[in-house]
Amino acid sequence: MLTKEAILGAFQFRHACKQFDPDKKISDEDFQFILEAGRLSPSSFGFEPWRFVVIQNPELRAKLKAVTWGAQGHLPTASHYVAILCRKDDMRFDSAYVDHFMRDVQKLPEDVIKMKRDRYQKFQEHDLRLLESPRSLFDWACKQAYIALGNMMTVAAMIGIDSCAIEGYDQEATETVLANASVLDRKNFGLAVMVAFGYRNKPQPQKTRQSLEDLTVWVR
Amino acid sequence: MLTKEAILGAFQFRHACKQFDPDKKISDEDFQFILEAGRLSPSSFGFEPWRFVVIQNPELRAKLKAVTWGAQGHLPTASHYVAILCRKDDMRFDSAYVDHFMRDVQKLPEDVIKMKRDRYQKFQEHDLRLLESPRSLFDWACKQAYIALGNMMTVAAMIGIDSCAIEGYDQEATETVLANASVLDRKNFGLAVMVAFGYRNKPQPQKTRQSLEDLTVWVR
Repeated sequence: MLTKEAILGAFQFRHACKQFDPDKKISDEDFQFILEAGRLSPSSFGFEPWRFVVIQNPELRAKLKAVTWGAQGHLPTASHYVAILCRKDDMRFDSAYVDHFMRDVQKLPEDVIKMKRDRYQKFQEHDLRLLESPRSLFDWACKQAYIALGNMMTVAAMIGIDSCAIEGYDQEATETVLANASVLDRKNFGLAVMVAFGYRNKPQPQKTRQSLEDLTVWVR
Repeated sequence: MLTKEAILGAFQFRHACKQFDPDKKISDEDFQFILEAGRLSPSSFGFEPWRFVVIQNPELRAKLKAVTWGAQGHLPTASHYVAILCRKDDMRFDSAYVDHFMRDVQKLPEDVIKMKRDRYQKFQEHDLRLLESPRSLFDWACKQAYIALGNMMTVAAMIGIDSCAIEGYDQEATETVLANASVLDRKNFGLAVMVAFGYRNKPQPQKTRQSLEDLTVWVR
């Protein structure tokens, strides 16, 4: 049903769409499907650091446009525009969020919670040295968000919906705009990345990529 | 052909598979397909910071096992085991790699190269402050790799192949093992993440996730 040819066809269809047809809107059902692919994405220890803020309000989009050089064509035309937030200190091994998460979402028994927390602590403190700085912890949470980001763009392409990931913004100014709009609690969240969805209004440019031979090393 | 139901079915099928059937191997054609999804993944400015090292050699896998607590079940049983590397200083706006990339891979004309490099410089120095430390630049490159990682796991699931992303390793010790095996040039690359592929030998556990309502905020 899902053939390799059709799947790779979607990867060829996907491109960084710079501007959308402002008259074509993604149906609620299709957009729920895109969000669902984000929701079902894997994350480290399964702790889902992300939150999806869908920005449809024209005034907020206009404010974002002033600080987001990378979305000048997207913000006015995207059918759906998403800011992906990630948790900051909440991701620490000793946070109330992680405790709540293991208990109430993952529904782990008490002894497994203890074991998992110990492991997670060593992982953060030692293995990847994630607690080196607040930024290194946040960047790590954001890495997980990029899995969700990728999956959302991929499944969109699979049903003929265009997208563009957007990193071209002033982090400080953009977080301020989102905080002032009361959709970002800067104490606990930061902006990981943004992504616009819609339908292209121009043919896509030629895709360029390194060859698989240049990218891959085999140790047999 | 690619129906939403079948696509989400693959997201339900995918789980962090802890151990594979050691007797079932992924065909060359299927594994090329998985790599191809990585290759065709999007990256910031299109600069493809990643490299895929496919580790099939049992001796190297054994050495990795000693420093990778998170892959104790995977390393001995995975059909294919991949270390995804990312570039470090090569990703700087003023590197020879970026220059080569725009010229020889993206085949941009001279005036566009200049414009893009200026924009990229401002992006790195100011917008996201990526040059704050070598780690922040590398972590940013790794974020892109997580898009490829996610896509590879997703398309694998779509053709019935299991996977598990692996972050559970000692960064320093693991990079040393890879460097000693001559597959990691630590001056120019670091280890972003690892991922194992194969076929499950146990039923998958119940998937837990927060609800879409808990994860999503709409600004209408």
